[in-house]
Amino acid sequence: RTNSARLWDSLMEMAKIGPGVAGGNNRQTLTDADAEGRALFQSWCEAAGMTMGVDRMGTMFATRPGTDPEALPVYIGSHLDTQPTGGKFDGVLGVLGGLEAIRTMNDLGIRTKHPIVLTNWANEEGARFAPAMLASGVFAGEIDLDYAYSRKDLDGKSYGAELERIGWKGDEEVGARKMHAYFEYHIEQGPILEAEEKQIGVVTHVQGLWWLEFTLTGKEAHTGSTPMRMRVNAGLAMARIFEMVQEVTMSVQPDAVGGVGQVTFTPNSRNVLPGKVVFTVDIRTVEQAKLDHMRAEIEARAAVICDELGVGCAIEAVGHFDPVTFDPALVNRVREAADRLGYSHMDIVSGAGHDACWAAKLAPTTMIFCPCVDGLSHNEAEEISPDWAHAGADVLLHAVLETAEV
Amino acid sequence: RTNSARLWDSLMEMAKIGPGVAGGNNRQTLTDADAEGRALFQSWCEAAGMTMGVDRMGTMFATRPGTDPEALPVYIGSHLDTQPTGGKFDGVLGVLGGLEAIRTMNDLGIRTKHPIVLTNWANEEGARFAPAMLASGVFAGEIDLDYAYSRKDLDGKSYGAELERIGWKGDEEVGARKMHAYFEYHIEQGPILEAEEKQIGVVTHVQGLWWLEFTLTGKEAHTGSTPMRMRVNAGLAMARIFEMVQEVTMSVQPDAVGGVGQVTFTPNSRNVLPGKVVFTVDIRTVEQAKLDHMRAEIEARAAVICDELGVGCAIEAVGHFDPVTFDPALVNRVREAADRLGYSHMDIVSGAGHDACWAAKLAPTTMIFCPCVDGLSHNEAEEISPDWAHAGADVLLHAVLETAEV
Ligand SMILES: NC(=O)NCCC(=O)O
Ligand SMILES: NC(=O)NCCC(=O)O
Repeated sequence: RTNSARLWDSLMEMAKIGPGVAGGNNRQTLTDADAEGRALFQSWCEAAGMTMGVDRMGTMFATRPGTDPEALPVYIGSHLDTQPTGGKFDGVLGVLGGLEAIRTMNDLGIRTKHPIVLTNWANEEGARFAPAMLASGVFAGEIDLDYAYSRKDLDGKSYGAELERIGWKGDEEVGARKMHAYFEYHIEQGPILEAEEKQIGVVTHVQGLWWLEFTLTGKEAHTGSTPMRMRVNAGLAMARIFEMVQEVTMSVQPDAVGGVGQVTFTPNSRNVLPGKVVFTVDIRTVEQAKLDHMRAEIEARAAVICDELGVGCAIEAVGHFDPVTFDPALVNRVREAADRLGYSHMDIVSGAGHDACWAAKLAPTTMIFCPCVDGLSHNEAEEISPDWAHAGADVLLHAVLETAEV
Repeated sequence: RTNSARLWDSLMEMAKIGPGVAGGNNRQTLTDADAEGRALFQSWCEAAGMTMGVDRMGTMFATRPGTDPEALPVYIGSHLDTQPTGGKFDGVLGVLGGLEAIRTMNDLGIRTKHPIVLTNWANEEGARFAPAMLASGVFAGEIDLDYAYSRKDLDGKSYGAELERIGWKGDEEVGARKMHAYFEYHIEQGPILEAEEKQIGVVTHVQGLWWLEFTLTGKEAHTGSTPMRMRVNAGLAMARIFEMVQEVTMSVQPDAVGGVGQVTFTPNSRNVLPGKVVFTVDIRTVEQAKLDHMRAEIEARAAVICDELGVGCAIEAVGHFDPVTFDPALVNRVREAADRLGYSHMDIVSGAGHDACWAAKLAPTTMIFCPCVDGLSHNEAEEISPDWAHAGADVLLHAVLETAEV
């Protein structure tokens, strides 16, 4: 069993870096706070006897050697970056839960045949730079390195430049490493485990996603002196697209979700009809056919809406992954570990995307969820209990040990 | 007659300060570019023999003395500040057209009984600090000085602090000056004069306005893992309010306008449902009863929309003026001047607000419009012809001379 107090202490220690405004965190990718969090994590890994490697996307890999020089490593990964108004556990629990598992192995003098590599993937959140899971996507060969470097935040700063600036551009070729298996421990970020009173979520699938970035082109004009019939109103087109996305999503219940989190008006002045409106529609569902249908329906109906208003409409997919099915053998191993340890559990589909989605392209992969209060995540008020955190870390430890072979 | 080439040269000279990105200007209130424009204007006024006074709101008053020490001044005013993506003429034409009228009086050795005061009102646009026509509103006693100082831009900088920073906080008490009459020359900013092929708009009324700033409170949550039924979706509420504002406005045609130019999502991350959405609805019409009806209807229906979604809704009026009727005698003087000079003209209602709206509370007031290409304003592509600019300056000169008594 892992050490619950030590895990919680580390979580609270990391949460001091990049504090939010309401008890959570703002430790966005490639900010100074991110660099500070990375340095703390590195010091902890080194204290636990691991060696740090960093790749050219800025992903950190801390290795605990195995006994067999030929054996591929078992990976444990998640992320330390957060949303601008993020919680203390989203991602962090997986990295520090993995660290706690390794610290426990050290305490008990456990050696494994396979090396174990603890990973802090860069830019998982996708808050500052779209898409989410960017570094793991490059690692898996699904996203081009130059494309990743070119991604810009809302201030126009690029991933590549910011990675250099914070000094965490490593020299490892991205994706050169080979994996025996990949485990990720994470908070559920949804309401199911808490409602069902289960300690462990055995994650079988992940919803597929499209991030559709709309750029609507209207005509900048005076809000007072421009008659209604002369307006080319991109703001109104946006409103109609929001409502339409809601309708399309509600027609695919209970499984689909759809919404918009980011909007930028240009020039964003109270008495100027916007010349440009940019926003990202986020749609997800676990069935490939439904996901494809939603995207097609949204694009077709948006074109009609914009045509009617004379508004220009360009759509760029700035994030995408297909629905994922995790490795049945590993899923089973997690389920059995929970049983063995006496933790209540249920199978669950992940609503959120995770680096595990890309790792699953490379090696047998699965995830472990712990509940979170009110299903709330991407909110500074995100909360879990130390007992919940502990249970998942125990399951992670057991599933990893079995896979890495003691 | 005024000097057309000199007027155009001055307009083009001023347009070099705070250039935009597409041929127009970004010389927003209390920026460094604003300070530079003010200094140029002051040097021109002094070269034309005028004396500059500045009040505590930063409004500039350049005085050409009259022959009667007892006579109250005739004011000519408009503004040199622009939208973030504004044109070269909105406001600037009125200030530099006034300057051209005075330069012409100097050329011809004309003295007037009443002094003439040429005014550059601060923060007319309201783009950076709401409301528009802020300094003239304080001057007219309609807006509180401390309230004006406290107004903040999107970066949280206040009017008072920025005014001090650029060094244009004068020592004159705001509103201490008395006016004999007030004239404002401006581009129409709408399509009517051009469509009707008239050189001069004789402005009889100005539409009343409400700027209703909505603050919607949703629940920040993950766009992927938060089921539709658990969402408190402030973005969706916003979309429904946009559509509703459109409906209410279309029910009051042909005279009313309504739209939204400014929107801010918080935290504005692609995979976070917004916790806060702030936007400003701009509604205008020339009939008081219709304006009151629109506001009441919008507020009532917004409450229903937000209730249905569980979204919190607070509405603050951040800009307002009632419909304005200009002084019939001055309106007539403008009409007669146009006739006398042989310029085609028509009576017109201003769709945009102007400092003249507040001046009208203090003294007989009216405005003169010149056409603008495609009715386009609050757009860098805003355009007028030198001949149009010239005609209005001539009418201004004549109407002012008649009022200031030669
Ligand atoms: N787990 C998580 O919040 N990942 C961010 C990517 C996503 O939006 O699903
Ligand atoms: N004339 C002008 O554009 N004024 C700005 C205030 C308004 O929005 O009407």
